[in-house]
Amino acid sequence: MRADTRTGTRAGSRTDVRADAQADVRADVRTDVRAGTDGNPIGTVMVCNRGEIAVRIVRACRDLGIRAVVAHSTADRDSLAVRLADEAVCVGPGPSARSYLNIPAILYACARTGADAVHPGYGFLSENAVFARACAEAGVRFIGPPAELIALMGDKITARAAMRDAGVPVLPGSDGPVASARDAARIAAEIGYPVVVKAAAGGGGRGIAIVHDPDDLPEAYRSTVAAARTLFHDERVYLEKFVSAARHVEVQVLGDAHGSIVHLGERDCSVQRRQQKLVEESPSPFLDDAGRAALCEAAVAGAEAIGYVSAGTFEFLVDGAGRPYFIEMNTRLQVEHPVTEERTGVDVVQWMIRVAAGERLTVSQADIVPAGHSIEARINAEDPSAGWAGSAGAIDRLVLPGGPGVRVDTHAYGGYVVPPYYDSLLAKVIVSAPTRELALRRLGRALDEFSCSGVRTNVDFHRRLVRDERFRAGDYRLDIVESVL
Amino acid sequence: MRADTRTGTRAGSRTDVRADAQADVRADVRTDVRAGTDGNPIGTVMVCNRGEIAVRIVRACRDLGIRAVVAHSTADRDSLAVRLADEAVCVGPGPSARSYLNIPAILYACARTGADAVHPGYGFLSENAVFARACAEAGVRFIGPPAELIALMGDKITARAAMRDAGVPVLPGSDGPVASARDAARIAAEIGYPVVVKAAAGGGGRGIAIVHDPDDLPEAYRSTVAAARTLFHDERVYLEKFVSAARHVEVQVLGDAHGSIVHLGERDCSVQRRQQKLVEESPSPFLDDAGRAALCEAAVAGAEAIGYVSAGTFEFLVDGAGRPYFIEMNTRLQVEHPVTEERTGVDVVQWMIRVAAGERLTVSQADIVPAGHSIEARINAEDPSAGWAGSAGAIDRLVLPGGPGVRVDTHAYGGYVVPPYYDSLLAKVIVSAPTRELALRRLGRALDEFSCSGVRTNVDFHRRLVRDERFRAGDYRLDIVESVL
Repeated sequence: MRADTRTGTRAGSRTDVRADAQADVRADVRTDVRAGTDGNPIGTVMVCNRGEIAVRIVRACRDLGIRAVVAHSTADRDSLAVRLADEAVCVGPGPSARSYLNIPAILYACARTGADAVHPGYGFLSENAVFARACAEAGVRFIGPPAELIALMGDKITARAAMRDAGVPVLPGSDGPVASARDAARIAAEIGYPVVVKAAAGGGGRGIAIVHDPDDLPEAYRSTVAAARTLFHDERVYLEKFVSAARHVEVQVLGDAHGSIVHLGERDCSVQRRQQKLVEESPSPFLDDAGRAALCEAAVAGAEAIGYVSAGTFEFLVDGAGRPYFIEMNTRLQVEHPVTEERTGVDVVQWMIRVAAGERLTVSQADIVPAGHSIEARINAEDPSAGWAGSAGAIDRLVLPGGPGVRVDTHAYGGYVVPPYYDSLLAKVIVSAPTRELALRRLGRALDEFSCSGVRTNVDFHRRLVRDERFRAGDYRLDIVESVL
Repeated sequence: MRADTRTGTRAGSRTDVRADAQADVRADVRTDVRAGTDGNPIGTVMVCNRGEIAVRIVRACRDLGIRAVVAHSTADRDSLAVRLADEAVCVGPGPSARSYLNIPAILYACARTGADAVHPGYGFLSENAVFARACAEAGVRFIGPPAELIALMGDKITARAAMRDAGVPVLPGSDGPVASARDAARIAAEIGYPVVVKAAAGGGGRGIAIVHDPDDLPEAYRSTVAAARTLFHDERVYLEKFVSAARHVEVQVLGDAHGSIVHLGERDCSVQRRQQKLVEESPSPFLDDAGRAALCEAAVAGAEAIGYVSAGTFEFLVDGAGRPYFIEMNTRLQVEHPVTEERTGVDVVQWMIRVAAGERLTVSQADIVPAGHSIEARINAEDPSAGWAGSAGAIDRLVLPGGPGVRVDTHAYGGYVVPPYYDSLLAKVIVSAPTRELALRRLGRALDEFSCSGVRTNVDFHRRLVRDERFRAGDYRLDIVESVL
């Protein structure tokens, strides 16, 4: 009787009614979930990441009514993402090379759990064109741009050329890779010192040397080539003018597979330590409306020129005179995306999944009216008194801020053991308020509420920063952190 | 030198420069805080409440840059509000009659800490006209309406008359108190059964008897009079028609001391158990735009007629045909105010404080455009398997939901000991999304994330409710809870 009914509802897709009982139950659940998403080709998402971003992606799946499976390492067995997911699959041991970067294990986990799509989050495999291509070949949708666009923008030399061709302002520098220290000297003399030697395959602050004195250039060239070879297996380097006292401002874009591109406003990410962002805010307190519009239009022009699909970020340096220069594009979700979500009401992670499923963007540029001011503070598990080394171990008690205008994205909880293998990001505290002044006061309040025992964090740094006069005045550059530490 | 400076800045208000050093330090701090709030006459707020609402008020003070002092009982010594406040004062032992209702102790604490104003929250002294008057006499601002309005609306008979005179629809019923069981029978025969016998001094579901059969009326009349005498020291009762299968819909209003009144839209609070709200949402899934506009206009008319100041709520029953009937006004902050804050972006608690300081409302009715859908679920520390008795004791681990569109207002944390003296509200989970369907999915997700060990909660009830077909369809009445339990 039961077998007949089931065969009937599945239109004969399964005729062996004596099949393994547990497999049947699983199949039933999957059928229900797919039916519940109105024929969405993505019924199950494999989250191949960890920490707060894995939690964020699981939440987006559940908010969309899609099943979420988390691929995790043995070290993350008790993580919040694993606890919140519909299913979890261990893909390897703690070190990320053997788990979160283990492409065959992740693709096997997709096959085993019936995942139609993978969300790579940030870091790990998120900007790996080989992985994106392997997913496509395995019939699994990669939630991000096509592999060609990852490759195009991941190579900083081709990215620079593409943006220059699209009319996006780029820094004065070399046209393509620099073949020798002598060529480097010639180009540097043309554009004027200081210059930066950068690895073509670098990004995020790795594989970079700043040169103020022509005498130092040959050695900087050689060491960057060597570092590029070791780090990225790609020894090509290029040259750009170095802009001092700059600000880092980036524009979030979102594109669908049908040619629509929108921007979601800018984020000012000038509070950095060793090229790692610590605080991001939107709008930028430095840009005026004309500067903001120019930056956002440049990003849309760049995205349209390459036919961008999914969420992506155009990063610019803005010099003291307000002139923007494209530095790189991140073809993935960014840590700081909540700042944009809070100001625009657009759920960036949900849209990445929907766009990957082939949906058209239903928000037009005119619909997107960023409102108020949002700021994110990255709380890292690190020890300020030990050279900011990562602080692993068990969190004893954790009290997170809450109430109006406060969002916390975290994978941490009381009793969680921070593993020693990964980056130190513990929680993102995002505040929103009608004005920057009110947002700063709310951020101060939220940071005062944050209480964590068992591991050391940088929350005291943030408490000092939010009360720092330069930061409060919005008059800060990439060098502000040293003065607050 | 220092003495001269100080005397100068204070315009001679203190001439004895040898005064007690510690008092000086305190005075200096107070001066700074006041200066920071642009001459705001409220520099320090005394929060005379506990639990999540005390935390909420402390947060509003800090977001405004105002000092917050918490008056607490010995049982709440380790509470989150005490930890987050700038200062805390113990005003008595656990039982609320000796602490949270102890007017002399609270006023003495105001004097001792230099509080300029008191915020009473909800419950306890929040609708106590004697307390409001005592504050005024002690020179402490009561953050709420004037004592006369509390008295007017607290007496359900005078409130009913005032609203009828203002053209607000009231239920058919008695004109004033009912002097005898015989009078009650006459009036009940006129308006038709079923009827409700209500205590004039009641409210919030206490001192009420529903009568379906004329034979039961004399006994119901006598027992309600007796209960009213015992509970409220006021034996007056009145009669109203009983509306079955009704919905409870209320309108949030906000008025300043300069004659401006705005409404902030409605909340549907029909999910109740024993007249205690469990879930509130906005907009009401039952009302159409015309019904919603009529309700909100009636509330504004009522508020204007009595010259209302501060935050207040007009509660209505809405019958099956969509006809609204005023039932009572709450002259205080409501538990469910975050639903309105999330939809409108208006911070109700901050505005209560600003209005009490004499500020004019700077938001006009045209500025207030509620957007999306918000739902609040009240998580109570109670044991469903023990007749929903309150569950006191130590919380071992607590993991709260987070991420986009989720706000949690709570005083609970891992390690917190729930005292046995007070109401069972442990946390409010408030979700927001563009549509009701998306908000329901997000609420389901957030409830699944909620994890608490050590005390029992009603979270499983909420998980069932959010998946209940009637609730999902928005087609529910005040009787829905029994069918879900």
